[in-house]
Parts: sequence; C-alpha cells; structure tokens
Amino acid sequence: MKRVYNFNPGPATLPLEVLQEAQAEFLNFDNSGMSVLEISHRAKPYEKIHNQAKADILELMGLGEDYEVLFIQGGASLQFAMIPLNFATKENPGSYALSGTFSSNAYKEAEILGVGEIAASTKNENFCRVPTQAELKISKNAAYFHICNNNTIYGTEYHYVPETGGVPLFADMSSDMLSRPWDFKKFDLIYAGVQKNLGPAGVVIVVAKKSLIEKSLETLPTMLRYDTFYKKNSLYNTPPAFSIYMVGKVVKWIKNCGGLAEMAKRNSKKAEILYAVIDDSNGFYRGHAEKGSRSFMNVTFRLPNEDLEKKFVAQALENNLSGVKGHRSVGGMRASIYNAMTLEGVETLADFMKNFCRQNS
Amino acid sequence: MKRVYNFNPGPATLPLEVLQEAQAEFLNFDNSGMSVLEISHRAKPYEKIHNQAKADILELMGLGEDYEVLFIQGGASLQFAMIPLNFATKENPGSYALSGTFSSNAYKEAEILGVGEIAASTKNENFCRVPTQAELKISKNAAYFHICNNNTIYGTEYHYVPETGGVPLFADMSSDMLSRPWDFKKFDLIYAGVQKNLGPAGVVIVVAKKSLIEKSLETLPTMLRYDTFYKKNSLYNTPPAFSIYMVGKVVKWIKNCGGLAEMAKRNSKKAEILYAVIDDSNGFYRGHAEKGSRSFMNVTFRLPNEDLEKKFVAQALENNLSGVKGHRSVGGMRASIYNAMTLEGVETLADFMKNFCRQNS
Repeated sequence: MKRVYNFNPGPATLPLEVLQEAQAEFLNFDNSGMSVLEISHRAKPYEKIHNQAKADILELMGLGEDYEVLFIQGGASLQFAMIPLNFATKENPGSYALSGTFSSNAYKEAEILGVGEIAASTKNENFCRVPTQAELKISKNAAYFHICNNNTIYGTEYHYVPETGGVPLFADMSSDMLSRPWDFKKFDLIYAGVQKNLGPAGVVIVVAKKSLIEKSLETLPTMLRYDTFYKKNSLYNTPPAFSIYMVGKVVKWIKNCGGLAEMAKRNSKKAEILYAVIDDSNGFYRGHAEKGSRSFMNVTFRLPNEDLEKKFVAQALENNLSGVKGHRSVGGMRASIYNAMTLEGVETLADFMKNFCRQNS
Repeated sequence: MKRVYNFNPGPATLPLEVLQEAQAEFLNFDNSGMSVLEISHRAKPYEKIHNQAKADILELMGLGEDYEVLFIQGGASLQFAMIPLNFATKENPGSYALSGTFSSNAYKEAEILGVGEIAASTKNENFCRVPTQAELKISKNAAYFHICNNNTIYGTEYHYVPETGGVPLFADMSSDMLSRPWDFKKFDLIYAGVQKNLGPAGVVIVVAKKSLIEKSLETLPTMLRYDTFYKKNSLYNTPPAFSIYMVGKVVKWIKNCGGLAEMAKRNSKKAEILYAVIDDSNGFYRGHAEKGSRSFMNVTFRLPNEDLEKKFVAQALENNLSGVKGHRSVGGMRASIYNAMTLEGVETLADFMKNFCRQNS
C-alpha cells in the first residue's frame, strides 16, 4: 500500500495504527451490526465513545473536576466569534495578543462586535516571534486575555504561559494541543480544532472551567451559548460523531505511547533535527521564526530564491515527501511535524534537505 | 459480517456499497498515499470531491446557475439561528409554520432575537399533521416563510409546496432531502443536516438562491454570514471534509440508482408496505400521523399499551431490526426508512409486525 510522508499543516497525518483500526471496524462497530457512521448519538455505544474521549483528554491534560470538555462544530473560526459573544462587553473587552493569522482573525471577530483590544502585536516583524511577557499590555478590566499558542503559518510557538494579573487566560491551541505537557491549569478556556494533532476535521475541543460556562446570556442563539453544550454534554443536537470517535482513538493512542511527556520528547527531537539542518546550512535555509519562538509543530524556512523553492517542492514530492510548501503569507517551506509524524519521516526530510542544499549551494 | 436492519432516525443507515467503497480506500485515497482524512482541503484531490458533490446535488434537484450549494457545520440547529440573524428584522420578521419539534426549535431562535411570527401551528393536535395551505397566515411583510418539510419525530411530511404570496420560501429538509423529486425551484433556501438521507453527521447542506446570499450584514460574525460561505466556496476555513466526501459518495449512489424519481418509487413502496400493515391490523397498530400527512421517511405508530411496546422493541432486536423505538414526545414506535433502507429490510419489519400482531392481539 502506498503511503507518503505527509507534512500538511492540517488536515494532517494521522497515526497509521489508528487509521487501520478504524478501517477494520468500519462496517461493524463494536459488533453492533452498523458502521460507527450509522449508530445513534443517543445510544450507549456512542455515549461510551463520547464520554471516554472527554475523560482521556482531561486525564492527559492533568485537569480535574473543575474543567469540562465540550465538542463544538464550526472550527476554531466559530470559536473566534463565540468567545467575545459569550464573554466580552464594551466595558470588559477581550484582550488579544496578535502573533499571526489566526490570533488576528480571532481579534477581528471581537472587533466586529466592538468588544476587542490589542494587548500586543508582532505584525511589524511579520510575526517572526510571539510577544514577550514584558510586551503584553492587558487592561485590568479585560474579560479575558487571548493568545494563539502555536502559529501554524509562521511557525512560532509560545514557550511560556503568560501572566495576566488575574485576567482569565484563553488560548487557541489548534496546532499544538496535546503535543507536550503544559501548565493547563493556568488557562480558563482552551480550544482546538482537531485536524492537526488530534483527528480529522469536523470538531473543536473546548476545555474550560465549569464556572465560566455553566450559565450563558439568554439573549444569545442556543447554538452560540457555551452552556448549551455544557448542560447537554455536547449532545444538544447531533454531534459530529465520526470526528469525535477518531479523536477518541487518537487520544487513546497518545496515552498508549506514554502521554504528553513522550509526545514532547518525540516532537522536540523531530524539531531539533530539522532546525539543525537549517542552522547548519550556512544560510542556504533561513528559518522564518526567531530562535526563542520556534515551533515544535511547524518548521518554516525559506531558500535562496523562489526558483529553488519550486524545485525543492517538486523534488521532495518525488522523494515521497508531501505537503512541504509554505503558506503564501510567509512563502518558502513549512514542514508540519505533529504528534503523528514519525521520526522516520522527519529523518527522510532532513536527509533530503541536506542533499538538496549540497546540490544547489 | 454482522449487519442489522437499522431503522434509526439519524444518524441512520447508509448504502452498504458506499461504506464498502470508503472502507477500501480508507488508507490511500485516490492513490495519494494518504487517507481522505489526511488530505489538505486546499489541494486538488479534495477540491474535486467538494465541487463534484455540489454539482451532483444541484443536478439531482434540477436547479441551475441561480442556486448555490453551501456546506456549513453546526447542524440544522445552527441554521435555526443563522436564518433569522441573516434575514429577519422586527419590521420584516421570519414567519414560521410549527409542525413538530424542529420547526418549533427553528421558531424559538427567531423569538430569542425578537424577529419571529407564527403563521400556523398544529401543536394542539400533538403535531399529527402538517398545516394546510388554508391555515397559513403569512404576513405580507415577512422576510421569509419557514417550514420543516418532514417531521422526523412525529412522522409527518408536507405533500404540497406552500404558496406564500411572494414571501421567500425556506425549508428544513433534513429528513427528506433528495428522497423524491420536488418543485425545489419554488424554494429560496433549503437546508438539511445530512445524517438522515445523505451521509454521516457533521455537515449541513444549504441550497439557496445566489441573490439571497451574496451579501450579508457586516455586523454579523464572519462564520454566521452566508456570504462567507458563498464567496469562499465553503472553504473559508477547514470544512468537515470527511462528511462532505461521504455525502459525495451517497449523492453519486443516488444518481447511479436512477435519481430522485427512483428514490421516490422505492421510498413510497417501502412506506406503503408499513402503512398497510398498520391499517390492516384492526387497530392493533395506531399510526400517529393523519393519513394526508403521512411521512414516507418516518413511520410512527403506537401499540395497545406500553408493555407491548417494550416487548415489540425487544423482539424486533432479536430479529435483527434495530432502532424502532419512537421518540419520547410521541411514544410507541418509529421506523425510519430513508433512501438507504432496503426493501428487504422493510419487508422483514413488515413480516415481524404481522407476526407480532397475530401473537399479541
């Protein structure tokens, strides 16, 4: 069977074992005589999938009873709107650190509602780093302070948890969720579209303090209220059951591998290999991210010119290395090396990069 | 391999051929070396799936260039909110016919925003029929008139297209979408959660006149504006790609079977078989729906008492007939016989019903 090394930024590569398991039971889930696509979301077999996935996510994050896991559709982009709709007002605005495209998009939704403020921005530096703690100007009356923990497009990542002076801390972790142990307890609300580290597109995981989401504004549409999802165990209406089922399998796979500590070990090793190739290339490869902000998930780099970049993409594909083209906002290359990308895949890319550098320097 | 006859109301049974095809290519889609779960939504293989599904839906509906197909997450429940948010005002309210749970839920969202009116309701009759044309009191200044075309829970269905006196006609067709030829051109906006007739949960198909959705209010959050989906071909953010891929396969299956005329032929035959058993049971089975409003998709009926109903569910399961328990609002039984339910499945249920009646009368 043909399988490539898939460096796509999301939807992204998934653990082969997980795909094989889903394939094997695709027509007859848990001996129910139905595909998992066909089972009722009100029936016990689905409930088990749903609740086990929630429990495993909290366990991996080391969070307790005071947090709840919600499954919501619409992507992180809908969360960009739900967050200010639920929590921000003109008097208590949402405060945003702009560190890339998605944090800027999140701020834009607060701005549409007239309830956003900018705490910091690295836009003038083409988002080559995340803001430092010292740069954060968070209003004392802010409803929350919002960051994007890993910037997929620019290849930068927070390596510190911001101190907010008591303002609730919210984070979009779409592209580094469950990729490393982290001080999750410092966060009040975390959300992640799953299609990078955790499953196929179609569901967002929201992990929030129960005290924050147990009561929403009654003037909001039902599906935009966090308490609708909280009170109904994310089963107010039909959930995206297959995506949640796959997330459950991926989360179990992470646990079986050894949890977040093991993921961090693998991910930092993979990232170090690629950053070493960049740093040892005598300037042939130029990393986009500043060293202190380098992402362990998305490694972004440019080549000496665009012709070489095109050649790189084409030859990479011939070597079974797919999805290495960067986003147009940055140009150049991007290797997304989420949890499910194997060390073998990264080593193959690193060897290819070294050869390409030698042949084209 | 064990397979049951699955009469669940949704998520529901899918064509076995479609499931087998998806299973076969689950690890390597179209020789890409990736699962369809792993391919980029910006890449050509996905674009082809996406655009082909859209084209096939319009073709089956007999609609032309003036209509657009959108893929939106959040279920029909999010459409209940998006519709009044996009179209209704206090001066031009949304007008609703209440014929069951979901039409009432749709109205409730307009009510939260203070922009809804009730054109008709059969609530006093426990929704045993849909309103007649004569009963519809649609304000001349209504922004739209909204119906739920098939009422999954109560087992009723519109068998006429309402005349609205020029008010745009909107319909939730979640449970009978593409189950029969229909005068779709009379509708301005149709939407359907796909998990009944068209695929696994996770996406709503919206089919709307382009003139209606090409420009939305700029004060709305981006993900709640129809024009966001229209202008970006439903690819503003990552779509629920797997659900759309499966919808594409189901739609192709409908085309290969002979289109909506063939679906209607099969579905009316299946419904007639079950309604005949009810009508010929000397009152042992009592249909919930009035005859003129009987659904071809969901056949609802009660038994003489609740003990017999419990026994029916248990014995049905022993006979490989799953998901026949009715919704708590109606009680009794419900057999959901969407496009993918086979004639063989319905005949098996009909035989079981006749035997059960004989043994328990």
